[in-house]
Amino acid sequence: MKNFYISKSRRVRSTPFTKKIEEQGVKSYTVYNHMLLPTTFSNVDDEYLHLKKDVQIWDVSVQREIEISGRDANQLVQLMTCRDLSSSKVGSCYYVPLIDSSGGIVNDPLIYKLEDNIWRVCIADSDVLLYAKGIADGKKLNVKIFEANIDTIAVQGPKSFKLMEDIFGNDITKLKFFKYDFFKFKNNKFLISRSGFSKQGGYEIHVDNAKDGLELYDHFFDIGKKYNVKPGAPNHAERIEGGLLSYGNDMLISDNPFECGFEKLVHLNSDVEFLGKENLKKIWDNGIKRKLMGVKINSNNINLMNVDLLNSNKEVIGDLRSAAYSPGFKKIVGIAMINNDFCKNNKTFSINLNNKFIDGEICVLPMT
Amino acid sequence: MKNFYISKSRRVRSTPFTKKIEEQGVKSYTVYNHMLLPTTFSNVDDEYLHLKKDVQIWDVSVQREIEISGRDANQLVQLMTCRDLSSSKVGSCYYVPLIDSSGGIVNDPLIYKLEDNIWRVCIADSDVLLYAKGIADGKKLNVKIFEANIDTIAVQGPKSFKLMEDIFGNDITKLKFFKYDFFKFKNNKFLISRSGFSKQGGYEIHVDNAKDGLELYDHFFDIGKKYNVKPGAPNHAERIEGGLLSYGNDMLISDNPFECGFEKLVHLNSDVEFLGKENLKKIWDNGIKRKLMGVKINSNNINLMNVDLLNSNKEVIGDLRSAAYSPGFKKIVGIAMINNDFCKNNKTFSINLNNKFIDGEICVLPMT
Repeated sequence: MKNFYISKSRRVRSTPFTKKIEEQGVKSYTVYNHMLLPTTFSNVDDEYLHLKKDVQIWDVSVQREIEISGRDANQLVQLMTCRDLSSSKVGSCYYVPLIDSSGGIVNDPLIYKLEDNIWRVCIADSDVLLYAKGIADGKKLNVKIFEANIDTIAVQGPKSFKLMEDIFGNDITKLKFFKYDFFKFKNNKFLISRSGFSKQGGYEIHVDNAKDGLELYDHFFDIGKKYNVKPGAPNHAERIEGGLLSYGNDMLISDNPFECGFEKLVHLNSDVEFLGKENLKKIWDNGIKRKLMGVKINSNNINLMNVDLLNSNKEVIGDLRSAAYSPGFKKIVGIAMINNDFCKNNKTFSINLNNKFIDGEICVLPMT
Repeated sequence: MKNFYISKSRRVRSTPFTKKIEEQGVKSYTVYNHMLLPTTFSNVDDEYLHLKKDVQIWDVSVQREIEISGRDANQLVQLMTCRDLSSSKVGSCYYVPLIDSSGGIVNDPLIYKLEDNIWRVCIADSDVLLYAKGIADGKKLNVKIFEANIDTIAVQGPKSFKLMEDIFGNDITKLKFFKYDFFKFKNNKFLISRSGFSKQGGYEIHVDNAKDGLELYDHFFDIGKKYNVKPGAPNHAERIEGGLLSYGNDMLISDNPFECGFEKLVHLNSDVEFLGKENLKKIWDNGIKRKLMGVKINSNNINLMNVDLLNSNKEVIGDLRSAAYSPGFKKIVGIAMINNDFCKNNKTFSINLNNKFIDGEICVLPMT
């Protein structure tokens, strides 16, 4: 595949760390929430292996944080998601599909409850700010909604725990998955959560002061040599294998949460009011016809996009939504939306690649 | 400046024309509405001169079209904009700032009235779909809102009229500015508007059938040699000189329409209801403190981003939002948000570029 350059502009925002990661040799970007997201420093295969073995520092400032506060903030946040938040607690984060009134997925953020009626919504790639503002304006809710001036560093990989302990002390490793707390570095306290877009373990550091964040960023590399720390980025093969979905790739507003495997996060029998409730009930009663599943394809072609999955009669049984070469499985791993009849582990299919049929098999997520 | 590659994925959508423009030698992209927007084929200076002299074909499919229809469609579209649409007509397009309840700019689309209660909103780079859905869900409006499957080809430049006449006949040149109609090519009718993101004249062709659109695309190059037709893209220097604002670059949700020079499109004394009306009245009564103006800077540095404008005492008087080298003016042209006191033609300022002060002057838009 030919490579193309990215044109920078103010509209495609840089982060406080952009200058640094360019000095560190970033090669490519994508754009996410109107902001630059680094994608590779060396090559994705080496980065996959390194992420699974050591520790990486990621500039994931693109996970913009929409702050929703005010008397009706709890109500507004609940209106947007099918997950019952009535027993949510300060100090926890929650993975919540955001849903529109027809039951389509608008975004799949991690949301942080900072105080009663103060939330931070760490968004995937769609303008949740505008959705929240629209609902609030339409319902005349008493809320304040804005994009907080927060940039996120992720520390991911099996050695992230040791590296973080060296900086923040033992308390950081006591933090449980999807919990957050405040931790001190020099004179500053950072909100840090045990979370991140990999299955290798790690933390996300929510930087509300760029100067301090840059000092911390440098510090990771100053002291992290013994853990073989490197700059990195979310790795598609790793996150596909781990079953971490990517909004815009694997799911869109035209998909509903049942199709995306979120049954356990759709609380139709709860007392809480949310926008898609009525239509999600109908969808549930009618049953879904397709579902996201993992796939493995016997190929090392890294440019699989807009590909149909075919059964033995060459009929379309699904569409491939994400794909990447996995150095672990030594084949392409992917996520596909697949007709019910074929949503079984080990079912085989083929794809037509330049008039050559290539075999694959369906598998559960996360992949084993 | 070092160049970086763009990483493609399903989330950053290709258009029906992407394959063709890559064969035609596109060099770089930006991402706009979660989709690829070509930015250069040769170099932006040559493309500036060519656009002003001949005719270019642009793949501007990123101008996604949000269709809003149903019993309350007129009401919803009006709620989103400060421009009074009560006398709007089928066959016309309207440039309308979309506004949130606090008076901030959400987007600046061109909207097409297709029928009473059927609109297409051709959006700049923010998810207007989610804003519209939020309002509709909040107010329980009877509307259908979706992103239409439409991709846009722009034909821009002084020779666009002759080229279009050769294909669509004399009627196309009778079409007045910001009007649209349906025109036949082979067996298909295309919605074509006299519009486009340049000041060189031209048309936008709204393609609702990719196969037919691709045939038309090829036809432009088959018959357009005598007009020196070339593939192209919106040109920053040209559009800055012309005073065409770019959402995300020149203005954001933190700016209000008065600051952006849209006074004539803010109808506070009309009878129509829109979301920002109350707060825009307050802003108008209090008066604004800054305004978008043109700037010319005595430099050929093409990487001016996040730059402050300084007065003779080196105090900040504004911030530069767009900048590009203009082969016409032989200096940098830009758009900046400038404190009221300095919003005068020919006022001088300086910028600090790597500890060297460079002079510039403020000017009205469009530039002369």
